[in-house]
Amino acid sequence: MGGDTGPTAAVHGSAAAVLAHPGLTIDLFGPRAQLESELTSLPRHLAAAGSRLSVRHAPEAIRQGQRPSDALRRGAGTSMARMLAHLADGRAVAGVSAGNTGALMALARRELGMVAGIPRPAISTAIPTRNEGRCYLLDLGANVDATAARLVDFARMGEVMARHVDGLAAPRVALLNVGSEGTKGSASVREADARLRDLATLNYCGFVEGDGVFAGAADVIVCDGFVGNAVLKASEGLARMLIERVQATFEAHWSSRLVGLLARPALRRLKGELDPVRYNGASLLGLTGIVIKSHGSADATGFSYAVQRAVREVSQDLPSRLAAELTGGTALNKSKR
Amino acid sequence: MGGDTGPTAAVHGSAAAVLAHPGLTIDLFGPRAQLESELTSLPRHLAAAGSRLSVRHAPEAIRQGQRPSDALRRGAGTSMARMLAHLADGRAVAGVSAGNTGALMALARRELGMVAGIPRPAISTAIPTRNEGRCYLLDLGANVDATAARLVDFARMGEVMARHVDGLAAPRVALLNVGSEGTKGSASVREADARLRDLATLNYCGFVEGDGVFAGAADVIVCDGFVGNAVLKASEGLARMLIERVQATFEAHWSSRLVGLLARPALRRLKGELDPVRYNGASLLGLTGIVIKSHGSADATGFSYAVQRAVREVSQDLPSRLAAELTGGTALNKSKR
Repeated sequence: MGGDTGPTAAVHGSAAAVLAHPGLTIDLFGPRAQLESELTSLPRHLAAAGSRLSVRHAPEAIRQGQRPSDALRRGAGTSMARMLAHLADGRAVAGVSAGNTGALMALARRELGMVAGIPRPAISTAIPTRNEGRCYLLDLGANVDATAARLVDFARMGEVMARHVDGLAAPRVALLNVGSEGTKGSASVREADARLRDLATLNYCGFVEGDGVFAGAADVIVCDGFVGNAVLKASEGLARMLIERVQATFEAHWSSRLVGLLARPALRRLKGELDPVRYNGASLLGLTGIVIKSHGSADATGFSYAVQRAVREVSQDLPSRLAAELTGGTALNKSKR
Repeated sequence: MGGDTGPTAAVHGSAAAVLAHPGLTIDLFGPRAQLESELTSLPRHLAAAGSRLSVRHAPEAIRQGQRPSDALRRGAGTSMARMLAHLADGRAVAGVSAGNTGALMALARRELGMVAGIPRPAISTAIPTRNEGRCYLLDLGANVDATAARLVDFARMGEVMARHVDGLAAPRVALLNVGSEGTKGSASVREADARLRDLATLNYCGFVEGDGVFAGAADVIVCDGFVGNAVLKASEGLARMLIERVQATFEAHWSSRLVGLLARPALRRLKGELDPVRYNGASLLGLTGIVIKSHGSADATGFSYAVQRAVREVSQDLPSRLAAELTGGTALNKSKR
């Protein structure tokens, strides 16, 4: 129920995802009548998915501006809370939501609990980089004032994810900072740098600046949630603006006939390539279960990517890997933390 | 002497700037022989500028990685320090440098001093927005851990700049945050929000998220230096990546003949439009004089924009405006700070 324009994108995206994955079934949480009506009106190319989509009734929904504390107190009848309880009961292996991020984090933490002493989830998503690569950026807003110890947790969780979910042998981990010299940055970033240098298990490569994110300077880039959120949202805004300008440039300077014949298909392809939707699906890391946040504005294709992200994390059993490696981690340090 | 590839860009850019402004003369600081050789080999279209460019000898240069404390202790013979001393002596009305930002801030603060109780300069640059607008983002790296009081200073300084230099009657001022609700964000951001609401003189419009920067949601957007630096550098990296991909898409999908005939001129125009160089020139706000930081990688055109930024601030006498308005400001508050 959390999408910006109602549940249609989530239902269509779920349908597309089950068609792409033969073993997959999905439970949809929300007002029964509304979801059943969505299912009966599935477009023809998605209709075959209907038998693998089930409706689970939830009379209410978390509102976009609702505070996490309020969601915890009064959210029991909502689609988000019921989905997470279902997951906690072992009746599903992963949950996907396009709703209120703060409420999702708070409810998921209460329903599922955290692994290995992680106090609260971190949010991470893959960012496209030059040379067709990707980079996990975290945290993206869950922890606005992160201490050095939290930044180290983010680094270790991101590294486990990149190693297992993306199959990288030794993911390069970096800290986002305002300069590459050790003397720059806030106290918590400099302390996290010292701690990460002591972790023998990590392929830690020091500081990167903001341009390192898209340059592919590392596979995992760590920052506090305020910085990560600002960088991610500013980047989304800039990408939108640049795509508009590309379009406007070609439309202003070429005859409309040429645009019709030549530029439009290329522009469409380009838009698809640049679209943040390709990487839709942010992981809530540190929970004992798999929870993926889909962008509120994602369309059906975007939502299906978020579901596919969940499928990939399930196939690698990410929470168990995190629990095992984060618990064992301190014994592997080169020195005391 | 501070450009990434030596002084050529600065000398050529200075030449272009004096040709664009009939009343302008520029003193160039650096090793005399090197700068004189640059001047004698000016390209033909810039040669007429030579008579309005003077060389001021400085045997040394601040290095890119040099710490500000070291620059303060041992920088006396450097081009940067001598340029700032020249400015402090009243022998120039503005200084422009493409060198080490931290050293420039520290030396400028010592040589020029600060206005109205501002403890250290804030760095601000104009960001292009949708609908051909612009937005001043600050701070961009000078103050990595900004208190609420500092954020309020940034807001007031940015507002004075937008009002006088850009001629906006009531610039819209916003705080960058991870959400638009008042309950979100770090303690310093929430406290700054409360203080800004109390300032009757300011057209304060609350929180914006990262995508608001490029959406043109405000004319002045305030954040701490860590966040601003990360957002700015990530945006530069993303813009570079997207321009490369636009180019690659057209080259991969069209015949080279069509690309040659049609796409290349449009792409060139687009690149010019998106180029961050158009807005090159970051202001060091809060000094008693005008100091502009040019991007280290800026070419001659970029450097000439930074000089033109300085010219505009001189014509509006920005430091005097800042001193007058920031000193008088507290008396105009609706309530105590």
